[in-house]
Amino acid sequence: MFDNVHIEPTDESLGEATAAARAEEFDAFVAVGGGSTIDTAKAANLYSCYPADLLDYVNLPIGKGLPVPGPLKPLIAIPTTAGTGSETTGVAIFDFVKMHAKTGIAHRRLKPTLGLIDPENTRTQPPAVAASAGLDVLSHAIESYTALPFHQRPRPERPILRPAYQGSNPISDVWSLESLRLVSIYLERAVRDPSDDEARGSMMLAAAFAGIGFGNAGVHLPHGMSYPVSGLVRGYRAPGYAVDHALVPHGVSVILNAPAVYRFVSSACPERHLRAAEILGAKVNGARLDDAGKILADRIVQLIRDLHLPNGLRALGYETADIPRLVEGTLPQHRVTKLSPRPAGPEDLARLFEESMLAW
Amino acid sequence: MFDNVHIEPTDESLGEATAAARAEEFDAFVAVGGGSTIDTAKAANLYSCYPADLLDYVNLPIGKGLPVPGPLKPLIAIPTTAGTGSETTGVAIFDFVKMHAKTGIAHRRLKPTLGLIDPENTRTQPPAVAASAGLDVLSHAIESYTALPFHQRPRPERPILRPAYQGSNPISDVWSLESLRLVSIYLERAVRDPSDDEARGSMMLAAAFAGIGFGNAGVHLPHGMSYPVSGLVRGYRAPGYAVDHALVPHGVSVILNAPAVYRFVSSACPERHLRAAEILGAKVNGARLDDAGKILADRIVQLIRDLHLPNGLRALGYETADIPRLVEGTLPQHRVTKLSPRPAGPEDLARLFEESMLAW
Repeated sequence: MFDNVHIEPTDESLGEATAAARAEEFDAFVAVGGGSTIDTAKAANLYSCYPADLLDYVNLPIGKGLPVPGPLKPLIAIPTTAGTGSETTGVAIFDFVKMHAKTGIAHRRLKPTLGLIDPENTRTQPPAVAASAGLDVLSHAIESYTALPFHQRPRPERPILRPAYQGSNPISDVWSLESLRLVSIYLERAVRDPSDDEARGSMMLAAAFAGIGFGNAGVHLPHGMSYPVSGLVRGYRAPGYAVDHALVPHGVSVILNAPAVYRFVSSACPERHLRAAEILGAKVNGARLDDAGKILADRIVQLIRDLHLPNGLRALGYETADIPRLVEGTLPQHRVTKLSPRPAGPEDLARLFEESMLAW
Repeated sequence: MFDNVHIEPTDESLGEATAAARAEEFDAFVAVGGGSTIDTAKAANLYSCYPADLLDYVNLPIGKGLPVPGPLKPLIAIPTTAGTGSETTGVAIFDFVKMHAKTGIAHRRLKPTLGLIDPENTRTQPPAVAASAGLDVLSHAIESYTALPFHQRPRPERPILRPAYQGSNPISDVWSLESLRLVSIYLERAVRDPSDDEARGSMMLAAAFAGIGFGNAGVHLPHGMSYPVSGLVRGYRAPGYAVDHALVPHGVSVILNAPAVYRFVSSACPERHLRAAEILGAKVNGARLDDAGKILADRIVQLIRDLHLPNGLRALGYETADIPRLVEGTLPQHRVTKLSPRPAGPEDLARLFEESMLAW
């Protein structure tokens, strides 16, 4: 048993897990925990099966982006949060400490062999964790639904070179929207009352459904911008997380950027932004397409307030002077930023971070 | 190339295809056609890889129901109808001529390696074929959505013994309902105008989505009862099908039984029947749950009329005196009949066939 998983894993913590995996001849991996645990198991599986420099398999341009050379050992993922959907995806995310930014490894072969999705395992999830993880689900669903369509991405030379994140498509849309429907009905119930079995079970499904959606379509700017927000954190302590270090929970760092992003990108696919807003309960009858991003953003801000999350990046300790470093940490996240339906350069990102300083 | 596929395959036609597959050392199979073609390729793949008596792998109780012993050769399925969804399933159906009934082989290993779903390939589908195949999609979607829930099925001793058709479940529901939404919008358009690219493309997706749904959840009485309706056919000639023998297209034999079935089984899950009816455009506001089956059945009858399908089994040449043989041909179809949300004995089936003699 390896129980030294780092919440929001780092290059160092993945190295430790890999060393533990290589210490004996294991037949398989079983990951019991949230996204940090499942992602750690994926990385330990990969680097113990195919030893390499950490950066070899890490996404371009931070790493070399080499494909996983062959099949890995079986990995059974047992999520204990309703958020990440990592049990369904071929992605592992970690903090590259030297760069103060998150990055990841993405390849189909990282996908767990089996996921055991049992809402009994989230019964003791603290409400603040349920809120943060649940907003991660919401963002997975909306980002994958609004991601650049697959047919607008550059066509790879050979099918095997297609990235894990292919862009939105008719299959991922089904999962993203169904997940959003569940989140809309059950997220607040699940946060308010951890004994609400139906709500907790539905949020587990929503997390997995969104995982299948974004695991194929990808996420875009809210995730891309979240990586430096989590990676550069100084003093913020998150309620509900029993850790002895500063931490911005992943869902928090994602959702605080989301309203500004949707206002910015919605012109690329306003109908999709309106549809997402409608599923979340916003009134969209008679709405103008030009207002689609604002309507969706307003609805998300309401959810952030209702779930008692911090009021923007400022509440996490960031100020305007930090924006250049936040932008610098976002720019190399090609795996996700290239999926934005509207391209965002450094000035755009700076403005989006500025708008995200205060949520309301 | 083997182009002697029998429309609605028989034990004999599968034997021919298997012999062709064994005549040389092929690396893989490519099936280009409708469900008959793809199912034939599945069977030829199975029996050429693992030669056996035909009945060895056929479903219980007609065959021995042995599991497929190992992996098959790659099979690429290229559907040219929007109906069967066979490109997504591990099922192959054929007429067992001696018994005058359809039966099948069902195992995950029969699933095609890859499906190439391209609406260009249905551009020349005759409207009558589009109608029949499209109503098969509709029935796949509703049957899998109303099938006995997976947790009400007898629990198998070991997971590997789970049947391919597991009963309705939260994953298959997503596919079934999304398929039904597409059918509701696009079926009549696709039949009316084969040059309507959007409608044809959406029906291709609907067929595949329903295939993923029913390929995991299963179908129930409309399919179970369709097998003897197709198997016992005497003189009926189907418009749009260029064959030199009597033939009831699969979708026709399925949909003509559907209204009576839904009136009979809806008491087991009336909300699901109402939801299906609502997606198909029926008014369900204020409807009583007791009327759910009738409301759905009426909507289906309307579709049958609008698409100019035969008015019930009588129009195919059946009469009341045939009912005992139709019942006899349905009873052994355990693979699907056991998924009915309400058990149906011989008397029930006889009444359902009688009610299906005239659709309106």
